[in-house]
Amino acid sequence: MDDPSSSAPRRGTNLPRMGDFNLTVILDAVRRAPEGLSRVELAQLVGLSPQTVSNISRRLLDQKLIVEAGKASSGPGKPRTILRLNPSGLYALGVHLDPALTTTVLLNIVGDVVEHSVVPTPPSHAPGEVVAAIATEVERLVDASGVPPEKIAGLGVAAPGPIDAKEGTVVGPPLLKDWHRVPLRDSLAQATGLPVTMDKDVTAAAVAELWTGTPGADSFIFIYLGTGIGCSVVLNNEVVRGVSGNAGEIGHIIVDPDGPPCTCGLRGCVAVACTARDLVARAVESGVLEAAGEGGDLARLEELCRLAEEGNADAARIVDGSAACVAKAASVVASAVDVDRIVFGGPFWNPVSARYLRQVPDHLNRFSVVKGIHGYSVAGTGVGNDVGAVGAACLVLDDALGARAERLLLAR
Amino acid sequence: MDDPSSSAPRRGTNLPRMGDFNLTVILDAVRRAPEGLSRVELAQLVGLSPQTVSNISRRLLDQKLIVEAGKASSGPGKPRTILRLNPSGLYALGVHLDPALTTTVLLNIVGDVVEHSVVPTPPSHAPGEVVAAIATEVERLVDASGVPPEKIAGLGVAAPGPIDAKEGTVVGPPLLKDWHRVPLRDSLAQATGLPVTMDKDVTAAAVAELWTGTPGADSFIFIYLGTGIGCSVVLNNEVVRGVSGNAGEIGHIIVDPDGPPCTCGLRGCVAVACTARDLVARAVESGVLEAAGEGGDLARLEELCRLAEEGNADAARIVDGSAACVAKAASVVASAVDVDRIVFGGPFWNPVSARYLRQVPDHLNRFSVVKGIHGYSVAGTGVGNDVGAVGAACLVLDDALGARAERLLLAR
Repeated sequence: MDDPSSSAPRRGTNLPRMGDFNLTVILDAVRRAPEGLSRVELAQLVGLSPQTVSNISRRLLDQKLIVEAGKASSGPGKPRTILRLNPSGLYALGVHLDPALTTTVLLNIVGDVVEHSVVPTPPSHAPGEVVAAIATEVERLVDASGVPPEKIAGLGVAAPGPIDAKEGTVVGPPLLKDWHRVPLRDSLAQATGLPVTMDKDVTAAAVAELWTGTPGADSFIFIYLGTGIGCSVVLNNEVVRGVSGNAGEIGHIIVDPDGPPCTCGLRGCVAVACTARDLVARAVESGVLEAAGEGGDLARLEELCRLAEEGNADAARIVDGSAACVAKAASVVASAVDVDRIVFGGPFWNPVSARYLRQVPDHLNRFSVVKGIHGYSVAGTGVGNDVGAVGAACLVLDDALGARAERLLLAR
Repeated sequence: MDDPSSSAPRRGTNLPRMGDFNLTVILDAVRRAPEGLSRVELAQLVGLSPQTVSNISRRLLDQKLIVEAGKASSGPGKPRTILRLNPSGLYALGVHLDPALTTTVLLNIVGDVVEHSVVPTPPSHAPGEVVAAIATEVERLVDASGVPPEKIAGLGVAAPGPIDAKEGTVVGPPLLKDWHRVPLRDSLAQATGLPVTMDKDVTAAAVAELWTGTPGADSFIFIYLGTGIGCSVVLNNEVVRGVSGNAGEIGHIIVDPDGPPCTCGLRGCVAVACTARDLVARAVESGVLEAAGEGGDLARLEELCRLAEEGNADAARIVDGSAACVAKAASVVASAVDVDRIVFGGPFWNPVSARYLRQVPDHLNRFSVVKGIHGYSVAGTGVGNDVGAVGAACLVLDDALGARAERLLLAR
């Protein structure tokens, strides 16, 4: 445990920091405008002087991060040059390590997936084999893409938690056999020769939503439906990571006082009440699904949700009950930090999405203590199924280019 | 509800913003060193150049916010001039509006309470009467203090939630009769002629802890034991307020699956399981306290906790049960945002503090999913019983002087 008395004064800022920050602000504004922006529009949007915008644009053009993309005329005066992101200006690799599957993507700066692969994670889970397998996929993808290695900013890894962010270790996720403080970040850096950034899968997913998802509010919570259920908090465009990088643990929020007993000694927690595995198990108990069904949890959850949509009352009861439970968990976190937007994603989102999108808003309003002040918007991620791997690549872009206020402060 | 598609690019920064921010950073560092600091020490602490520190110190000396307070020699070389906060450089007023009592304080910039009063809140709760009563107390305190009005930066108000932060209204707290969207901020500004800042009581309490509490971690949660129980989240020295200023609502976290039914339709929520009123009611049911005891909830809770400390098993069971419940709620929030420090305060903290400080850490560890990465530190607020009113005054200081990164960004 850190010594709490070690709290130090805030750090100041200086001109070089300010310049770097304004550069990321300009890049951020250009990134959010796929149709491009003129220098005049940029200055208005970010509040900087035309001279500053012009100088920074020059730096970004020199670095080939943006390009001049034609002219636009709006009324009298001379037509303005439009600036756009240069899709081939910078790339990032991302890998999502899941106990069953390893997903790897190469992302360009615009957020498009240029290369993509899904391979089985080595079943032994031996850390050396896992690292070697990732390094092989990374090399294969870079070769296939033809992208010059010097244009690749780094490799991001989305790992199951808990992690030790400072050490770059995966501490002991329940579903990776015999993983105890595996130094995944450094091992991958050594195996690939790339700078490596690591975060929890749910954190990476939230960063993906910020970078390449549907444009939305700058504060939201991201509910990640994976083997477990996690929840990232995004406040003012920044993902909350917490003191050890383990923010997002909501497995022990009690969502059903009549639910099954939990390892924590209480009952009805998220971890035992509404994961995909719980729904499938409940469907088997009720005779809705056969005991030895085909496929993994995903295929069986898809079958359950299809039955529910077709009008099978037992299937509907199970899926709808989980919507109420997940909404309760979302409501607890949203109420604690007061956000009004809930974004869903993760591997098990797709099958439940239709019913959740219909039902979760009503549950949220039912639990709300700020009725009459604001409602809630509920959406599925704009990123899609690879949100973990895309998010991992976005960690790299965010490190390199994110307009984060902390970037302004002098390092200790 | 705000249109979520209204998300705009981040704003840039410029030289005047940078200067203002660095000034608050210097002031923050001086404030955290009651024994004072030399310019050389300051430069090292905040990472700024000696020249910048010297220029800013000059501005602060001119504004009389800091003073030169003697020389210190440390080894060879010429003795260094020590800079300290000037206690009479700036003042702030704070009022905590509680359904039963109105507490008003005048705080100096060091965080000392210069004047203090507690008066009954007008029993009618009529907004006009409440505002007039506060204005009278404010005027009385300023007169009594002899502080020149131009040295008073403003009036902060800590109100029961929910509030509408943008409008400055108190929306409809359960215990203020007939309060529906009362424009408290503007009414008080009109009645006192002072600039007024308003926040929820639990937010104000967390700001107080940041400004004048025990120096601690820069991220923590603050559990406020009032008529209800609230929980503020502080991340990197900044209090999370949320989209409408209503962060901190944890009343519907389920902490006891066997608990009593709640208005939300579930059961065992914080709001019905572990408030002071719940403990007193349970003590009456068990025959530990008499049905018609003397005094209000506070006096009766004190009696209950005294009995528990004296070895009354029923009393101990009730108080200890509440420690487990409150710890569960704290664990839910601390796990979601990954903080490792829990600070308690509020009017009902004092009586339970001995048992909670002994028991809550074990409960937190029991619920923890990041065991082996970090433990938790648990403490009572360093601010004391007036934490709401002191916090209200700190809102004003924080607005005027807080070293918040957002201060760097250009206004829209």
